[in-house]
Amino acid sequence: MESKSFFSFIAIAFLLLITWTHLPHAPSPEADIPTLLDCASNSPWCTSKNRFQSKPSASTSNRRRRRHESAVPRHPLDPLTVQEFNKVRSILSSHALFKSTSSYALHSVDLEEPDKEFVRKWEKGQPLFPRIASVVARANGVTHVLTVNLETNEVNVQNTAPPTGYPTMTIEDMTSSTWAPLSDPKFNRTIIERGVNLDDLACLPISLGWFGKKEENRRLIKVQCYSMKDTANFYMRPIEGLTVLLDMDTKEVVEISDTGRSIPIPKAANTDYRFSEQKLQQEAVLNLINPISIEQPKGPSFVIEDEHLVKWANWEFHLKPDPRAGVVISQAKVRDLDSGVMRDVMYKGFTSELFVPYMDPTDAWYFKTYMDAGEYGFGLQAMPLDPLNDCPRNAYYMDGVFAAGDGVPYVRSNMVCVFERYAGDIGWRHAESPITGMEIKEVRPKVTLVVRMAASVANYDYIVDWEFQTDGLIRVKVGLSGILMVKGSEYENMDQVEGQENLYGTLLSENVIGVIHDHYITFYLDMDIDGSDNSFVKVNLKRQDTSAGESPRKSYMKAVRNVAKTEKDAQIQLKLYDPSEFHVINPTKKTRVGNPVGYKVVPAGTAASLLDHDDPPQRRGAFTNNQIWVTPYNRSEQWAGGLFVYQSHGDDTLAVWSERDRPIENKDIVVWYTLGFHHVPCQEDFPIMPTVSSSFDLKPVNFFESNPILRIPPNVEKDLPVCRPAASA
Amino acid sequence: MESKSFFSFIAIAFLLLITWTHLPHAPSPEADIPTLLDCASNSPWCTSKNRFQSKPSASTSNRRRRRHESAVPRHPLDPLTVQEFNKVRSILSSHALFKSTSSYALHSVDLEEPDKEFVRKWEKGQPLFPRIASVVARANGVTHVLTVNLETNEVNVQNTAPPTGYPTMTIEDMTSSTWAPLSDPKFNRTIIERGVNLDDLACLPISLGWFGKKEENRRLIKVQCYSMKDTANFYMRPIEGLTVLLDMDTKEVVEISDTGRSIPIPKAANTDYRFSEQKLQQEAVLNLINPISIEQPKGPSFVIEDEHLVKWANWEFHLKPDPRAGVVISQAKVRDLDSGVMRDVMYKGFTSELFVPYMDPTDAWYFKTYMDAGEYGFGLQAMPLDPLNDCPRNAYYMDGVFAAGDGVPYVRSNMVCVFERYAGDIGWRHAESPITGMEIKEVRPKVTLVVRMAASVANYDYIVDWEFQTDGLIRVKVGLSGILMVKGSEYENMDQVEGQENLYGTLLSENVIGVIHDHYITFYLDMDIDGSDNSFVKVNLKRQDTSAGESPRKSYMKAVRNVAKTEKDAQIQLKLYDPSEFHVINPTKKTRVGNPVGYKVVPAGTAASLLDHDDPPQRRGAFTNNQIWVTPYNRSEQWAGGLFVYQSHGDDTLAVWSERDRPIENKDIVVWYTLGFHHVPCQEDFPIMPTVSSSFDLKPVNFFESNPILRIPPNVEKDLPVCRPAASA
Repeated sequence: MESKSFFSFIAIAFLLLITWTHLPHAPSPEADIPTLLDCASNSPWCTSKNRFQSKPSASTSNRRRRRHESAVPRHPLDPLTVQEFNKVRSILSSHALFKSTSSYALHSVDLEEPDKEFVRKWEKGQPLFPRIASVVARANGVTHVLTVNLETNEVNVQNTAPPTGYPTMTIEDMTSSTWAPLSDPKFNRTIIERGVNLDDLACLPISLGWFGKKEENRRLIKVQCYSMKDTANFYMRPIEGLTVLLDMDTKEVVEISDTGRSIPIPKAANTDYRFSEQKLQQEAVLNLINPISIEQPKGPSFVIEDEHLVKWANWEFHLKPDPRAGVVISQAKVRDLDSGVMRDVMYKGFTSELFVPYMDPTDAWYFKTYMDAGEYGFGLQAMPLDPLNDCPRNAYYMDGVFAAGDGVPYVRSNMVCVFERYAGDIGWRHAESPITGMEIKEVRPKVTLVVRMAASVANYDYIVDWEFQTDGLIRVKVGLSGILMVKGSEYENMDQVEGQENLYGTLLSENVIGVIHDHYITFYLDMDIDGSDNSFVKVNLKRQDTSAGESPRKSYMKAVRNVAKTEKDAQIQLKLYDPSEFHVINPTKKTRVGNPVGYKVVPAGTAASLLDHDDPPQRRGAFTNNQIWVTPYNRSEQWAGGLFVYQSHGDDTLAVWSERDRPIENKDIVVWYTLGFHHVPCQEDFPIMPTVSSSFDLKPVNFFESNPILRIPPNVEKDLPVCRPAASA
Repeated sequence: MESKSFFSFIAIAFLLLITWTHLPHAPSPEADIPTLLDCASNSPWCTSKNRFQSKPSASTSNRRRRRHESAVPRHPLDPLTVQEFNKVRSILSSHALFKSTSSYALHSVDLEEPDKEFVRKWEKGQPLFPRIASVVARANGVTHVLTVNLETNEVNVQNTAPPTGYPTMTIEDMTSSTWAPLSDPKFNRTIIERGVNLDDLACLPISLGWFGKKEENRRLIKVQCYSMKDTANFYMRPIEGLTVLLDMDTKEVVEISDTGRSIPIPKAANTDYRFSEQKLQQEAVLNLINPISIEQPKGPSFVIEDEHLVKWANWEFHLKPDPRAGVVISQAKVRDLDSGVMRDVMYKGFTSELFVPYMDPTDAWYFKTYMDAGEYGFGLQAMPLDPLNDCPRNAYYMDGVFAAGDGVPYVRSNMVCVFERYAGDIGWRHAESPITGMEIKEVRPKVTLVVRMAASVANYDYIVDWEFQTDGLIRVKVGLSGILMVKGSEYENMDQVEGQENLYGTLLSENVIGVIHDHYITFYLDMDIDGSDNSFVKVNLKRQDTSAGESPRKSYMKAVRNVAKTEKDAQIQLKLYDPSEFHVINPTKKTRVGNPVGYKVVPAGTAASLLDHDDPPQRRGAFTNNQIWVTPYNRSEQWAGGLFVYQSHGDDTLAVWSERDRPIENKDIVVWYTLGFHHVPCQEDFPIMPTVSSSFDLKPVNFFESNPILRIPPNVEKDLPVCRPAASA
């Protein structure tokens, strides 16, 4: 069934290829008709897209459509609306750059956010600032960065030609690349020689990084393919060693490398993970858990004003989906319970870039060093969440509205969810003990607010949570699940292997190797602690030896505060035996007893890249050379790997900016934190991986005068819901 | 009101002091009457204890009493029952060692577990092994270790006199120490000179570690006091610098040191954390969260057979409260879903020791280097949990039954809770992306089983969770909450302070300094992966440079496996830039494709002690010198700081055992993991600390042939409960 649908996909795709190559891409007049929201348009991506969406009931989709058609921005940071996307498209279609060309593509159409100082001063009820779209487009093989003023219709072409690199692929780039090789007879012959029917074929577009001349002056991609026969999990059936080098602009096959003829395609048995495909007699085994649910019969405690402004407990922040970052949190403020005032914590936080280097230097693998945000679009890959499973029952869902390569807006429904979380955890507690004999037991439950998205970058799934606690803490958590990128192998058992190290991974099943790889997720955290001018303080914990006779103790640990003057002072590599706290403080604001107000970045489990700094992948991923960086705010420095990551040489990364060593003391500063994972696959990851998570915290440190949740009430039976099993159960 | 109850406590205490010193401690005949369970006995601790218990309804307490009175052991590892405790007491009371002495105390009475190989072979239905009690007692100032055979009544006095150190304090040691200073006129005068009324006095017994001769050949304790005037949170009102050195056996005041006369007692304002004391007009502020609850209307999915055998989903383990360790998990087994067989994972896991050094070398602080399990009894300090707040509504509660210093058993009700946890997290997921265009979205919710206890060691609260996941992972999590141990100070504002480093902490409020300290929690993990003989494998991840022309890549990361031959090979300090995985494998058992079956220890956020290894506290806490140790199984090596930690010199610690460098390859091995926290207090910790948590995981690695939760069903609306707000709401 899967293979059929894929076959039809190929068919449609061919059809569209023709459309694509023979028709001008200027939108047809119908393009502005709202029904375009349902993607009855000439955008191949939009056409295919609909097929992946969970089908909402007609009424829902109608309501949803109407809501998005009529949406108007209400906050300076609100994303572009359907009407604005359409306006951008028609303005550009008549612009000199595109009018004449037979084919062009818009690689990103996004809001050009107004200047920070304006936004910070803006208050509800005031008029919005001029709405401006920021566009990255390619026409006739040239990349252009433009802004489109939606009030004046003025188009401003910026002459910031990228030093190196290309813009984020459009979905059309990716999808068309997957079937382009089929136009090459040699490719088709090879596939058939491998014993795979063309209609069982599934191919992936793989960004190829940059390793030298070979990757220069041409927008390239590599394509590798799999057999879908007898499984939906084609990732477990690689046609190993077959790599097609493709020109992404012309779709021409540049080179075919086939180094794996002797390697069998792993069998399909036990690879399908879909519930519908599981053996029923086995099901019972894990069906032993009675229904369990987070219940809030009075409904959630948060409100979302004007579609994007989230207000919960003592928190308030602006939330929007973004095609590249996924989710953007802006203007996070927490209420001071003493004064009642909303206080600035973070102006903007988002996933800036990912870096996923695989650890196999051979021909078909060395180039797999993904940068998912800049190459594929972390937000573009965020699929609709699955209610009751991706998020609990009490969740609210937010749609994303993005533009396809032809500028046609489309809706990514249920892309983000927001829910209150009670996990049975404890906010704070104290019971007096037999030692004092006092009769005291005070305990408070912990309830938090979670903002979640899940991006599926082909095989891998990234779950990103922003969790807000009433005590002022923000936890940023990344979960990894989905399917491994595996390597076909002649080995069926480890007893055939000499030197396991040379496998580059773990034998997961007969002929299947899970290749070792890392994941790095770099977050942009524009902290504004009670205002935009802050300092970064490294509170170093170090051993202090006592002097003779000073104390029966030989040593103790003291905290030494070092204010970072310039960027290089804030390039941090974590060390267990040279620990520090990392504070962002407001040097001009002190607590009652004179401590500077601040937040600290609190790392938890993480990993660091061991690659040679001069290795091309690590040069491009140099933003992972430290776990923490601090830069002065600069609106052009948002993407840790550079604005144009695709095939970049690494000359526009956070590491390069930081080397300028600019002053950062008492300035508007941005903190960058990289969360890392080493992943040595194990058999439990086959055929799909149980989620592995790690996180870091942004935690108030002398920000409040005292415990901000002292007055939170305890749970009492009379407030809790009355529940019964579902009628049908 | 608090101060009154405390006054009456003092009064009762005096009364009991007389009893204590003038009556022989041999139990009176009534002592065997079950009503002793309600502590209407001559045990001062038992008398006072009852006052801290949440008062269960009469019927509950009757049911509970009857249950405990009639309890009989059903499993070889079941803890001693009420009847067994009473039998031990009467056997010993007529034993030569105690018959003649006017005063003796039982410092611990616990089950002497049968030999591991017997227990592993035992099956339900078979007769139990002879029940033996292990007793640590002191009589006439001498420590004795004995076993009492409850079938033969045979008492076996072991001649293992402790090299150094004393047994865990009895609750009577602690409580009596708190008022003993009152018998010293000089002490009372000092208190009054400090402006504190004696009936506002609250004192704490503080273990004084060992720093040399001064602490030898005498069982000593230090007592420091606080003012309870106008607050239940006396910890925030230290009578700074006043330290009473006490002989714990004679209760004689050895020395009074008063170095803080000039330091004011911090004010009571804003220190009380009890809900009843919060200003009502402020309450609303945080009352904004609608009722939220984990609901399981069909009830929990786990059963607890014979009071201690927990069976849930694919897990099964024996659970018991322990006076020293708190909670002991034994014979944890997970079902293999392919074979249906229950497979060994861990024979025994528990909190072996804690080490909490404070970082202030001055007279009143240098000695604060607590070892809470061995000195105070981690389990003895675990108070009844607060239903709905300490654990969610769907929790089951387990009581502890311990012996007081006179051997009289008592019940610690609701000491442990067990509950299923759904936190809105995802067990595994995958959605196909626009790249492939397949219509797939499979997501599974994550439901886990949590075993929780909370120990209140005077001011601090430790929450210990053992969390079991259906994918085979065990997460051990420690949460820190409760109240800081603070230092009085003349400072009211930081602008009065030169050199903040010399504060030894943070000014939290006027005249209150939160002193920097560490927490180390060391876990005993007797892993038995498919049997008791295992090996420890360090899978070192290291950079491999490519040779010229081998690859466009300069470097990659490879995994190098090193099997630890002896203990020193397994002394591990974690390094971010020299990472490893830590596997416990069964070298004789392989998966279908030939990987050794195993589990790995997965550290997360942690901290390491920076103290000089020759510093007396660090010598005693040397078990924290590494994060991971592996020792061959030895039933006498269970307590990382030694059996007799109190005033020990550190000559019986894990570090000493490990130096013997015994073979550990393919042996029955025990893994030790230390979880660490650096705590630099901040104002948010005043007057009570929001919970800070960290954890580590025990994770299957090639233990299962494939993902063990592939067949877990997704949530569907029809199975979820139907809930409405509580009627009264």
